[in-house]
Amino acid sequence: MSSAPAAHDPGVGPHPVADPPILDPQLAALLKRTPDGLVCAVVQQFDSREVLMVGWMDDEALRRTLEGGRVTYWSRSRREYWRKGDTSGHVQWLKGVRVDCDGDALLVSVDQVGPACHTGTRSCFEAFEVTR
Amino acid sequence: MSSAPAAHDPGVGPHPVADPPILDPQLAALLKRTPDGLVCAVVQQFDSREVLMVGWMDDEALRRTLEGGRVTYWSRSRREYWRKGDTSGHVQWLKGVRVDCDGDALLVSVDQVGPACHTGTRSCFEAFEVTR
Repeated sequence: MSSAPAAHDPGVGPHPVADPPILDPQLAALLKRTPDGLVCAVVQQFDSREVLMVGWMDDEALRRTLEGGRVTYWSRSRREYWRKGDTSGHVQWLKGVRVDCDGDALLVSVDQVGPACHTGTRSCFEAFEVTR
Repeated sequence: MSSAPAAHDPGVGPHPVADPPILDPQLAALLKRTPDGLVCAVVQQFDSREVLMVGWMDDEALRRTLEGGRVTYWSRSRREYWRKGDTSGHVQWLKGVRVDCDGDALLVSVDQVGPACHTGTRSCFEAFEVTR
């Protein structure tokens, strides 16, 4: 009978299973989430300061964004993570993230490759201008 | 017995009661609201393009903003309308409103008097910068 440790006991095997990565607890403690665990992410082109879009992040999307250097969202409609540009090529390279005073919004500074909007415009806010 | 029309029949009296004002139906039809009837409003200083804050509006807050020329929000914590600057003096004069491609976010261009943030900073995003 083999004396090898049980494969699913992370504390015993020769290569212990690492804990899954989590968002920095100090940052996580700042966030005030919606009932479904999300914060609003306002995305701004770093040099022109144009507001490109608004997306949603949970803790894991923010962690992936910070660690990978490309902006990743939680898609509320598709219920999955969505790294901007993976299918379109319209990548958002991360420049910085700021948290607002009450922790329920992020300002994400990016360098946007191509159009930010799925409609092909640079910004998602070109669709409709309200006249008074 | 008096022949005066019933006071609460708006169609009969000499001064019919006006319908309460509503948001332009064409604009209202564009909006995709959260389950509690809100859209996210990103507020940007019109000339410097600094992102000042994020607030929330329902249809009535947007109507008041457009008609009054000063930005009005729905306060989720206090559950009331809140016209920015009424107590602080830090008024937001409306310059324009844009709706994003899927109708769940507004980009509100303003001329901000004084600090936008209740903490006294110009922007609400000066609280915490995330380092990677």
